[in-house]
Amino acid sequence: MSLTVLDRAEALRKALDAERAGGRAVGLVPTMGALHSGHTSLMARAAAECDVVVVSVFVNPLQFGPGEDLDAYPRDLDADRARVAAAGSSYLFAPAMSEMFPEPPLTTVTVAGLSETLEGATRPAHFAGVATTVTKLLSLAGPCRAYFGEKDYQQLAVIRRLARDLSLPVEVVGCPTVRDPDGLALSSRNRYLTGEERAVAPTLYAALVAGRRAIQDDHERDPEVVRAAMTSTVAKEPRFTLDYAEVVDAVDLTPINALSGELRLLIAAVLGRARLIDNLGAHA
Amino acid sequence: MSLTVLDRAEALRKALDAERAGGRAVGLVPTMGALHSGHTSLMARAAAECDVVVVSVFVNPLQFGPGEDLDAYPRDLDADRARVAAAGSSYLFAPAMSEMFPEPPLTTVTVAGLSETLEGATRPAHFAGVATTVTKLLSLAGPCRAYFGEKDYQQLAVIRRLARDLSLPVEVVGCPTVRDPDGLALSSRNRYLTGEERAVAPTLYAALVAGRRAIQDDHERDPEVVRAAMTSTVAKEPRFTLDYAEVVDAVDLTPINALSGELRLLIAAVLGRARLIDNLGAHA
Repeated sequence: MSLTVLDRAEALRKALDAERAGGRAVGLVPTMGALHSGHTSLMARAAAECDVVVVSVFVNPLQFGPGEDLDAYPRDLDADRARVAAAGSSYLFAPAMSEMFPEPPLTTVTVAGLSETLEGATRPAHFAGVATTVTKLLSLAGPCRAYFGEKDYQQLAVIRRLARDLSLPVEVVGCPTVRDPDGLALSSRNRYLTGEERAVAPTLYAALVAGRRAIQDDHERDPEVVRAAMTSTVAKEPRFTLDYAEVVDAVDLTPINALSGELRLLIAAVLGRARLIDNLGAHA
Repeated sequence: MSLTVLDRAEALRKALDAERAGGRAVGLVPTMGALHSGHTSLMARAAAECDVVVVSVFVNPLQFGPGEDLDAYPRDLDADRARVAAAGSSYLFAPAMSEMFPEPPLTTVTVAGLSETLEGATRPAHFAGVATTVTKLLSLAGPCRAYFGEKDYQQLAVIRRLARDLSLPVEVVGCPTVRDPDGLALSSRNRYLTGEERAVAPTLYAALVAGRRAIQDDHERDPEVVRAAMTSTVAKEPRFTLDYAEVVDAVDLTPINALSGELRLLIAAVLGRARLIDNLGAHA
């Protein structure tokens, strides 16, 4: 099985239309490149469930705010290509900015509510940028199953919702976060960490585990106590500047006064040059 | 040729997927019903250019503002069905509100710039409502040619732009406005007019013609003079309350200081219970 690399939007559309016309189901793995084993797990899942897999690599400028790391964001298309080929995917779609957006888009896709809390509180235009570009990618790819990591849990919720609201011909599939043995969630932004920062980075995951333990082992139902379990864990490591540590409804990401049902613990903190996020499911 | 009436979104998607799988090109005519000869001309154009034509009838609540005529908007599905059948269209898609939006959508599609002037100035959420529902209809219909009347010229510009920005698999086709012999543009809202109001309604078209004459016959290049030609025409008929009379670039709808190139004259006014709009092309 050989990998076809495409950089033209219409070439992608035609190739995938031809695959579907041949009766083959398409799996799409949208990424911003700098691929790691988390992405590989998405490709493997897509390969297991679909006949052809297309991986897109596009560092989406619309989802970066002023002062964020758009310019610094790691780019290594040769390494990405090797990883996509090794995973057995059929297509790599790696369009230039000028191909995706030959003119600055006037159109924006927004998802109210879900986009405004957590990541959206500190990154006000982030999810509109995600939603707009993902809608465009899904539109180019056509009917497919699209694979996204739970690592970006709020993003996954936003994309699920826009696909449903806009009746996109897409089944959105969320896949478990892949972690290093010490618990750190894989992320392209982990490359920003120094050795010393990397050593303490798993504290973020430890905080989520502490929050889950409070809910599931100690049967804590007060979200304030669960938040405190997380924040106190992070506070033990002074290199972190905590942004938020929350426990919310797993589907609509709204706060709950008395914890019950399917929940999600979400956390964000700055460590050195990196802003790291992570999350974990819990039930009460 | 018999007409298939569908009220389920997934039934529409499946039917049109099957048509395309059979090699037939799909034409879509999105409407809000209360069909008239303007709509018939869209169906005829679609039938001439496509193998199967689907007409959608959905009074889109998202594009009505508070105090606008959502409840009063004419609905007559039996008459619409007869007109669609007579035009030889293959499908009529007439979903209930609960089918299109089983839950209030959180997702909104907006088109900046184009949506904010003219109609957008007095109807701030109008084009977001249009863009969101049209994106959803286009997504349900799948790859097709979609036919819209130039009567709603700004709407056509908004839809062209969102289809391009989001890479929707759609060719947007604008079709000329159909007029009564006295010049009045056909509109479902003409039903709101009393006999006396109907008699003076062509004044709106006369104003556009006066504006075009100033540009094309008198070689006027000052937009203020062209606007004055339109407003003075409307002012002769005191039943009208003018909302705007503008001359703008035909593509991006921006004002031009010294008129040149392809232009569009647009006008809106209230007459009795009806708010009427119309537009006309001109070149300078």
